[in-house]
Amino acid sequence: MQGLMMDRQLTITSIMEHADNNHPNAEIVSVTCDSPRHRYTYADAFRRTRRLANALIGYGVRPGDRVATFAWNDYRHFELYYGIAGVGAVTHTVNPRLFPDQITYIVNHAEDRLVFVDPLIVPALEKIKDDLPCVEAYIILTDDDNMPDTGLKNAQSYESFIGSQPDRIDWPELDEKTACCLCYTSGTTGNPKGVLYHHRSMVLHTLIGISTDCFDLSVRDVVMPVVPMFHVNAWGLAYGAPVAGTKLVFPGPKMGDGATLQALIEEEQVTYSAGVPTVWLNLLKYLDETGKQVGTLRRVVIGGSACPRSIMEEFEERHGVYVNHAWGMTEMSPLGTFNTLKPEMQKLSREEQFAIREKQGRALYGVEMKIVDDENNELPWDGQSTGLLKVRGPFICSDYYNTGVPSDVHDGDGWFSTGDVGSIDAEGYLQITDRSKDVIKSGGEWISSIDLENTAVGHPDVAEAAVIGVPHPKWSERPLLIIVRKEGSEVTGEAILDWLRDKVAKWWLPDDVVFVDEIPHTATGKIQKTELRKRFSGSE
Amino acid sequence: MQGLMMDRQLTITSIMEHADNNHPNAEIVSVTCDSPRHRYTYADAFRRTRRLANALIGYGVRPGDRVATFAWNDYRHFELYYGIAGVGAVTHTVNPRLFPDQITYIVNHAEDRLVFVDPLIVPALEKIKDDLPCVEAYIILTDDDNMPDTGLKNAQSYESFIGSQPDRIDWPELDEKTACCLCYTSGTTGNPKGVLYHHRSMVLHTLIGISTDCFDLSVRDVVMPVVPMFHVNAWGLAYGAPVAGTKLVFPGPKMGDGATLQALIEEEQVTYSAGVPTVWLNLLKYLDETGKQVGTLRRVVIGGSACPRSIMEEFEERHGVYVNHAWGMTEMSPLGTFNTLKPEMQKLSREEQFAIREKQGRALYGVEMKIVDDENNELPWDGQSTGLLKVRGPFICSDYYNTGVPSDVHDGDGWFSTGDVGSIDAEGYLQITDRSKDVIKSGGEWISSIDLENTAVGHPDVAEAAVIGVPHPKWSERPLLIIVRKEGSEVTGEAILDWLRDKVAKWWLPDDVVFVDEIPHTATGKIQKTELRKRFSGSE
Repeated sequence: MQGLMMDRQLTITSIMEHADNNHPNAEIVSVTCDSPRHRYTYADAFRRTRRLANALIGYGVRPGDRVATFAWNDYRHFELYYGIAGVGAVTHTVNPRLFPDQITYIVNHAEDRLVFVDPLIVPALEKIKDDLPCVEAYIILTDDDNMPDTGLKNAQSYESFIGSQPDRIDWPELDEKTACCLCYTSGTTGNPKGVLYHHRSMVLHTLIGISTDCFDLSVRDVVMPVVPMFHVNAWGLAYGAPVAGTKLVFPGPKMGDGATLQALIEEEQVTYSAGVPTVWLNLLKYLDETGKQVGTLRRVVIGGSACPRSIMEEFEERHGVYVNHAWGMTEMSPLGTFNTLKPEMQKLSREEQFAIREKQGRALYGVEMKIVDDENNELPWDGQSTGLLKVRGPFICSDYYNTGVPSDVHDGDGWFSTGDVGSIDAEGYLQITDRSKDVIKSGGEWISSIDLENTAVGHPDVAEAAVIGVPHPKWSERPLLIIVRKEGSEVTGEAILDWLRDKVAKWWLPDDVVFVDEIPHTATGKIQKTELRKRFSGSE
Repeated sequence: MQGLMMDRQLTITSIMEHADNNHPNAEIVSVTCDSPRHRYTYADAFRRTRRLANALIGYGVRPGDRVATFAWNDYRHFELYYGIAGVGAVTHTVNPRLFPDQITYIVNHAEDRLVFVDPLIVPALEKIKDDLPCVEAYIILTDDDNMPDTGLKNAQSYESFIGSQPDRIDWPELDEKTACCLCYTSGTTGNPKGVLYHHRSMVLHTLIGISTDCFDLSVRDVVMPVVPMFHVNAWGLAYGAPVAGTKLVFPGPKMGDGATLQALIEEEQVTYSAGVPTVWLNLLKYLDETGKQVGTLRRVVIGGSACPRSIMEEFEERHGVYVNHAWGMTEMSPLGTFNTLKPEMQKLSREEQFAIREKQGRALYGVEMKIVDDENNELPWDGQSTGLLKVRGPFICSDYYNTGVPSDVHDGDGWFSTGDVGSIDAEGYLQITDRSKDVIKSGGEWISSIDLENTAVGHPDVAEAAVIGVPHPKWSERPLLIIVRKEGSEVTGEAILDWLRDKVAKWWLPDDVVFVDEIPHTATGKIQKTELRKRFSGSE
């Protein structure tokens, strides 16, 4: 028997209309290429979004069409998030930091008809424009006064594009499974693969993301997403803030600039932020150098890669900012787990608390997890058993966009193989110990390269560390530690191994240490272990 | 184009499994007829829920069957919420305070096959058992040792019913639109009408209910729902707490007992509660008389009927407990609006804040509201225009259960007429001024009976007040004020009208005051204006 409830669809349009009705005067503040501090309200934003939607329809954008954005976190990108999805088209956010070959591949694979691009990113696109035949026109995210001189096809300013359009529209009633956004995930090998979100998945992800034990967004908060809108939907904050009526502060192209972040926090009274570890290093360094404060900031969420404990401690001890660890993937919209302490854990010592807080956290409602062994047998949640992590849920992708072949990471039984290896404890806390392809198998046991790296970077002379497995006749593989020394340091490998000796299991101790000037990274900042393996172990 | 996301269904089963995996050790504490303080964990609860589900299947309960509960807020009722829905059947919660005729009508209309009943409610059912032919068996919510002597058909204790069942089950994969719960709403006229919720609506309502600007439930909270599980799903708290991992404290049959509530709050460290105004009057009276405290309690949500300002003030000034006003309806699952202040309102004076806080609040995401005039034209959100309130959303009912005729309060365009009359201001705050059938039309203008009543109860000699319209040759209707004096008071009508004179608009001043010993109420505690109109104005 079916229930008798209204069949209202979960759409991004409904988020926009909720904010427009209930939070018309909440502010959105942006740093952009053409304005050091642009300021307007949700009502203004959605009035312009309706003009944008009319412009898109007028241009001939049809439901299902892909429209690319190459943009920072700012108000025009925010309007694009809602305007493109609102007319039933697909917002294809592209990471401008990808390599030109990858961008070319992605735009052509997505068959983007229109490209919205920030003036600062125009030069990068000019270099590859002849390789992007599908793109019909480029809309530059500025006004006519600030238009760069460009050879991009049919270039037009954003302000002139939406300029003469009416600000009224009857939004189409969309089915909640209509595609709304597309984001490519670039592995370390092979071509990038597209994750095609739909309205329903985005709304559910948003509702869970703003809940008290996750982002905890309220109408009283001021949130500054430092995680980019060009990648994994800014962790959902650009949808969550309008649901809660939260003031939004967008740092634009200045996400990596500690001075800008500090000024925005203090002047706009930011209470809450989120981003990857690197951006926080920049901010903390700036605070350290200048003695400036971030007085209103109460909480920061760190994800994207494992958060070093030193960042947590510096935020908390020196600035009174609580840090929550989170974990997710592009394929998961992206939120998967979030780390908050349970009440009985409040009584633990600081050390015991950190042992929990450095884990990735508990699954959010809507995310089912399991860990399995090599034969796909489910392993217990005992904090010890380590296996491949699989996930399932209504905002996890079921396949990649238009690959022509079935996904090799989606099981017949509906689970997605994350490629991460880890354990889950009896209280539900996930600890990721490795990527499955990076795990080191030594004498039949697994050694966590991530654990070793995190321990090694604790050494005062180590700037960065990577661990890979190298072939070994007796143990099959043994760990090799690759180190970038801090400037001026001449620490020896022997000294580092000595230092590690009482910090890791005896059989985990690397057999050797090599020093390099630089460790190679992917465009999203991850260590490129394939390159290291090519160089140091002769394998891939 | 459809997105490529997993087709996982939003089910109550998924809430149970989430809590079982992630919050196995969170506690549920209950007062029951057979135990003054029962205590176990979510893991225990769901282990027993699986035994219950096996017992239901073993009995022959089929998907879609209605199973009634006559129960207080306690752990067995909690197990029923999950076990019945989990097997695809429908939990029909019945308000034991309804009149026997209404209960008879409801059980027969729902065609309940099984009835789960608290020992304290057994005597009430014995009186009408011969009129309930559809009921095959009664399961008494206790163990064999505490079984009452009863003539109810095939009576068995709950503990023996689930006793020998295995605690493993493969829960069926349910479509999210499968009916899960049924709750009848009893108007002041006509037969009660059933609202048939489905899994999807319950999950969405839950996610929105626990969000920061609504119930704000976290793993660190301890929540005591004083709003009954037998009516409108305890405002969703019995689903929301397991999603968040919140410790639950259930007062059982002692919801109206100030001493029990105070003891539970202090001893179980309750941080959060919710209920109708009346229960709080009992608690506040007890605190006043004994000087006892509710130290851990930080917030109380009050809804069900308008919260008198005196309750808000007493909670805040004497006990440091913040009060949020909320509004909803059985037809809305029930949450509709919730009152939190926006940041700019924090700067207002206390009086100005109360003027906002006494309103019903802003629409939650998922609830669309509009107010319309007599010709169904939409009225502006200006805080002045008053009209009939209509709502729409994914957890609002689309029709009533099995009435055989189309609902007369659901429009062709998909909106539900709440029957409430009110205004909405530019910031989205709803203020309900009347039920549409209680509104007084005088000289072409509307007078709010609720406003007049709320003002009149501010008089120190007034225990309760009701206002109805009586026919008037010139003005069409004029307000009549009906008063129950406080014990010992001999205040006159003239004195009350004098006192009201500078507190309400001149033309709102009632033409007359009558005194009664008692004002009639419905089973859910609302003033029965139909009765008053029959008696005092000769009309209905």
